[in-house]
Amino acid sequence: MVYGVIGTGALGGFYGGRLAKSGQEVHFLLHSDYEYVKENGLQVDSCDGSFHLDKVNAYSSTTDMPKCDVVLVGLKTINNHLLTSLLPPLLRHNTVVVLIQNGIGVEDDVQKMFPDQPLVAGLAFICCSKTEPGRVNQQCYGSINFGNYSCKDEKTFHTVIDDFTHAGIQCAEVEYLEARWRKAVWNVPFNGMTVVLNTQTDLLLKHPSTRELIYTMMMEVITAARHLGVTGLDRSFADKMMEMTDNMTPYSPSMRLDFDRHRPMEINYIYLRPLQIAAEAGCPMPHVDALAKMLSYIGACND
Amino acid sequence: MVYGVIGTGALGGFYGGRLAKSGQEVHFLLHSDYEYVKENGLQVDSCDGSFHLDKVNAYSSTTDMPKCDVVLVGLKTINNHLLTSLLPPLLRHNTVVVLIQNGIGVEDDVQKMFPDQPLVAGLAFICCSKTEPGRVNQQCYGSINFGNYSCKDEKTFHTVIDDFTHAGIQCAEVEYLEARWRKAVWNVPFNGMTVVLNTQTDLLLKHPSTRELIYTMMMEVITAARHLGVTGLDRSFADKMMEMTDNMTPYSPSMRLDFDRHRPMEINYIYLRPLQIAAEAGCPMPHVDALAKMLSYIGACND
Repeated sequence: MVYGVIGTGALGGFYGGRLAKSGQEVHFLLHSDYEYVKENGLQVDSCDGSFHLDKVNAYSSTTDMPKCDVVLVGLKTINNHLLTSLLPPLLRHNTVVVLIQNGIGVEDDVQKMFPDQPLVAGLAFICCSKTEPGRVNQQCYGSINFGNYSCKDEKTFHTVIDDFTHAGIQCAEVEYLEARWRKAVWNVPFNGMTVVLNTQTDLLLKHPSTRELIYTMMMEVITAARHLGVTGLDRSFADKMMEMTDNMTPYSPSMRLDFDRHRPMEINYIYLRPLQIAAEAGCPMPHVDALAKMLSYIGACND
Repeated sequence: MVYGVIGTGALGGFYGGRLAKSGQEVHFLLHSDYEYVKENGLQVDSCDGSFHLDKVNAYSSTTDMPKCDVVLVGLKTINNHLLTSLLPPLLRHNTVVVLIQNGIGVEDDVQKMFPDQPLVAGLAFICCSKTEPGRVNQQCYGSINFGNYSCKDEKTFHTVIDDFTHAGIQCAEVEYLEARWRKAVWNVPFNGMTVVLNTQTDLLLKHPSTRELIYTMMMEVITAARHLGVTGLDRSFADKMMEMTDNMTPYSPSMRLDFDRHRPMEINYIYLRPLQIAAEAGCPMPHVDALAKMLSYIGACND
């Protein structure tokens, strides 16, 4: 299979790099790092074993790239409006587009741009960042779950999972809607709270009032998900997320990193869309709403 | 009547100073400014006409002060635990204690300390600060409303109002519970939001998301008050508070000033007690709750 990677940042570089290392044909769209990677290849520093790709199929424009069987989208969702121009050169009618992105409602919106394209949600559980041009650093974790949103060709969908597995990446098939909401249970409280309170996960959990607030928000997300028909989430999952985060190294989620770098935050898909979907389902999330509105203010001031 | 002032900061200095200027006998408890005021008197800079009191009855301890007919308490509520030792030397059984303080539940707690003492709530609408030792500056407004909490001696209660009026202070009698909640409608959203978002009133109202959040919190406070039997508050009062604040000079509420000076914030009586009272009445205020929990975190970090 021929893979394309749109947005070769931390996630695109890591997963695309792994696939290329395992022998798959992978074509990378690069932006600021294009010249460097074309010349020097791609370095993946990894807790599971670092490696270097000497020769990388690097492109500065998707118009130069071949048609692909699978396209991995690693863009930040705030750049998804670019997909209407970036994606078409890579697409055949059956090209599977894997959105390795954060938040809820992403697939709905991309499907509106490309009504007949098979879409898959990629839910990455990874601590990974681009440390310098052509170099990504996977500090820990690394698994990715795939939720089938609209890919009727089950065979290709499972080939993607097999290829990732063969590349040494822990992955699994999950139910799309549940997986997106499951991830939101952690993302919603921690992303915004670390920005608004300018802190990290450990301090939020250490102070009783923010610990309680985080748990309350987790339960608002879980309650909304259950209203939407997700059955696999309940209080025990919130307990599990609290325990997991208690045991994590103090951590700055992606939104905090974006904020610190004065980049736009993914407020729309991590907050506004889930709030809208939950409210429409008759299940408002008021604590989350308060956080989202403060974040919107901070985002507007941080531009 | 003999007046005592406990806590001669901005409010105690201004109202006590005005009463003394009008010829009342006023005794001031001072802390850090004691020596200065004893020597130099008290300067009141005021938009309504500045004045200086050359000779001030200044004390560094309430044990040296005479018994009073009325005691004005201008302490920050975070220091109310000191009242058990500060107040008794000034009290006869019928001494009226006027709590010129912020928040909800203050009178309930002070009454527990002094079960039979007549208490009055003083609700100040004033922009006033202590600018240097022995000097307070009233920038604008200045009125004070009195709500009778437990003063059975109506005559003395009304004499206080008359004395304030005679001193040139705009004041009125108001229904205690409604007055406290009425003031909370403004205090709850703006005090905490200016701290958490490190901003001022005008910018909060300019951005659509925080404007909406502030209005939502105002309505949560109004709804809780109505649950508690307050009938005089509805949506039109929230509209009025929004309009009033739109027309105000950009303003930092007292909590923001406390925060900036690394002083403890009045989180208990402005947030936690109203939240508790509202929740017990079956009317939680979730947006306010989210703000309060963030504030508690910030307060703990700001100590």
